[in-house]
Amino acid sequence: MIYADNAATTRMSKTAKKALTEMMDGVWGNPSSLYVHGQKAREALEEAREKIAAAIGAEPREIIFTSGGSEADNQAIRSAAEIGKQKGKTHILSSTIEHHAVLHTLERLQKEGFEVELLPVSEKGMIRPEQVAEAIREDTCLVTVMYANNEIGTIQPIAEIGNICREKQVLFHTDAVQAIGHIPVNVREDQVDLLSASAHKFHGPKGIGFLYARKGVRLTSLIEGGAQERGKRAGTENVPAAAAMAAALEEAVARMPETAARLTAVRDRLIRGLGQIPHAALNGDAERRLPGNVNFCFEGIEGESLLLLLDDRGICASSGSACTSGSLDPSHVLLAIGRVHDVAHGSLRLSIGEDITDAEADQIIRDVKEVVAYLRGFSPIWRDLMAGKKPFIL
Amino acid sequence: MIYADNAATTRMSKTAKKALTEMMDGVWGNPSSLYVHGQKAREALEEAREKIAAAIGAEPREIIFTSGGSEADNQAIRSAAEIGKQKGKTHILSSTIEHHAVLHTLERLQKEGFEVELLPVSEKGMIRPEQVAEAIREDTCLVTVMYANNEIGTIQPIAEIGNICREKQVLFHTDAVQAIGHIPVNVREDQVDLLSASAHKFHGPKGIGFLYARKGVRLTSLIEGGAQERGKRAGTENVPAAAAMAAALEEAVARMPETAARLTAVRDRLIRGLGQIPHAALNGDAERRLPGNVNFCFEGIEGESLLLLLDDRGICASSGSACTSGSLDPSHVLLAIGRVHDVAHGSLRLSIGEDITDAEADQIIRDVKEVVAYLRGFSPIWRDLMAGKKPFIL
Repeated sequence: MIYADNAATTRMSKTAKKALTEMMDGVWGNPSSLYVHGQKAREALEEAREKIAAAIGAEPREIIFTSGGSEADNQAIRSAAEIGKQKGKTHILSSTIEHHAVLHTLERLQKEGFEVELLPVSEKGMIRPEQVAEAIREDTCLVTVMYANNEIGTIQPIAEIGNICREKQVLFHTDAVQAIGHIPVNVREDQVDLLSASAHKFHGPKGIGFLYARKGVRLTSLIEGGAQERGKRAGTENVPAAAAMAAALEEAVARMPETAARLTAVRDRLIRGLGQIPHAALNGDAERRLPGNVNFCFEGIEGESLLLLLDDRGICASSGSACTSGSLDPSHVLLAIGRVHDVAHGSLRLSIGEDITDAEADQIIRDVKEVVAYLRGFSPIWRDLMAGKKPFIL
Repeated sequence: MIYADNAATTRMSKTAKKALTEMMDGVWGNPSSLYVHGQKAREALEEAREKIAAAIGAEPREIIFTSGGSEADNQAIRSAAEIGKQKGKTHILSSTIEHHAVLHTLERLQKEGFEVELLPVSEKGMIRPEQVAEAIREDTCLVTVMYANNEIGTIQPIAEIGNICREKQVLFHTDAVQAIGHIPVNVREDQVDLLSASAHKFHGPKGIGFLYARKGVRLTSLIEGGAQERGKRAGTENVPAAAAMAAALEEAVARMPETAARLTAVRDRLIRGLGQIPHAALNGDAERRLPGNVNFCFEGIEGESLLLLLDDRGICASSGSACTSGSLDPSHVLLAIGRVHDVAHGSLRLSIGEDITDAEADQIIRDVKEVVAYLRGFSPIWRDLMAGKKPFIL
């Protein structure tokens, strides 16, 4: 199996598994308990918090543990909205290519009376900082722009946007689920107020993530109950998973220069190879792009069929976000960068992991070429295109 | 170490650990992915859902996975409130001894305009079904009464309350976090509409729980985003933890008659032994009580000192809910059953696990007797009591 869907989820690292197993076996107490066995769990939890804070340039008390990236996104945005509401500020700025955890939370807020403005992106999927500067109003309470896109891998100018928001005194949240552990992120340098992350995207366990909230930014609880996480997130702390997430992140950050260089080389090899396919186009920016992300549209085919045939050949890939598969709608991200409906349907996302070999990359290129040619062989759209009944777009 | 704090958290069973490890190693794909590796994860998730449904007499589609009991409580109550609001019904009935995940959610709803009525409990910590019948009004949208109390172990007449609610067409939620896996629970027989549970209370992993919602009861999302859990709970599904929870629950249910009999015998041995301590009183009902729960108040001592000294002797216990430790307030549950402030402070909860031996139980009795006597030796309250300056209450 060649696993090329690391943006959907990653395999847990040995380090993370070891941390999880050790905690399950040895430090399984409730961290709120007074006895030593509980206090050891408390120490392990705080050690995990310190490691995570260190990995993004934050202070430990600025990190709260959540059940994952979606929860962190929901809580970050709801908290900023609540702060805004109290000041009579109800305008929220975001982008058209955010993850659904952001977009759907914004839709809910819209129903509650907030005005949500989604900035359009360029055909490479980029937001320009000036767009943000121009769109911020007196009543803007939040700017939320993702660090790197989960489908097309585009990396946004977060530090520049952060700087604008800080100057204009507007809270800035970034969904950094695809960025953390993959590219350098520093919340101080980026001037970020709120940031969301998910462990299973960087070889940590599922079911855990974190929310960074700059000191002074008051969080609203999404889950009410016990006084865990300084009263901001109720529920018995998942210490084994937190420790495993911290171990995974520490390792990812330590290896990042090496991993990123390796992934970038293979990514560009894939982009060159797949770019030879006729009537194909890379989605997203070739430069400002996650090291492991490749995303193409192939005219005249259905992405779903492509994926199933690649699976037959042992290649795990996706057509976009895993969260929306099963839906027949084309990706909102591909539509946002200007792909028309038919073209957007023929997309392929490869999100490679550091263990990929050049030989595997070459096999992917070969297999995709063959499968695309095969599918075009009986695609009615392709037939129309070739017969000149419809113009080629790509 | 004698671990007698299973109500706070339990050690994972071998079965649960095995399921978790196997999934982490083998079935770690994203269940929303199309390829076989993802679909295997989907199958594992649905298998876990079936096992859990079977364990409580529900249908698989009536179960959604959450990050734990607190999240499930929050979502259940918020959903029922939303349904009520749409019908103009904004009165909610609950009890004074609920878990904070329920009470604090109700407080939030109160701020949002709901009227919350907390039924008082008897001095044994019991709600009478007639209380519910009398208190239900035309505009009542929800009754939420816990299955078994986390501090004093009292088991409520859930089936009777469920019957009343069904007749009066009011939604009924029960926080069954302490009951599931410990006493028989059947959502059909109990006529429950919504039920919350947490895996780490029955030897499953932390960070996972479930919410049962009867078919036809429309859930409101607490976490917005992807379409997971039929659109009711966004975020990549934690398949390894779900599988481990299902394995733990299946095992707990299979062993329940044996475990409950064993625990009840040891529990009653502890109650008899600790009952010999002068000026001590059992909290909760002696009969309608969780098999593993023992809770005493000892006059003239501080619960916290008792716990620390027991910890020195290798006994892990608590004075009440782990979620609120660190707080100086006495337990709201003990106050609700009529213990005065000073007495409520001198509480000890032992929640034993099935591996406890008679010898360990006897050691607990010996140690508690000694430590209580020792602490009373320099307690100013005890001195006043003994000098007749204050009357004994217990």
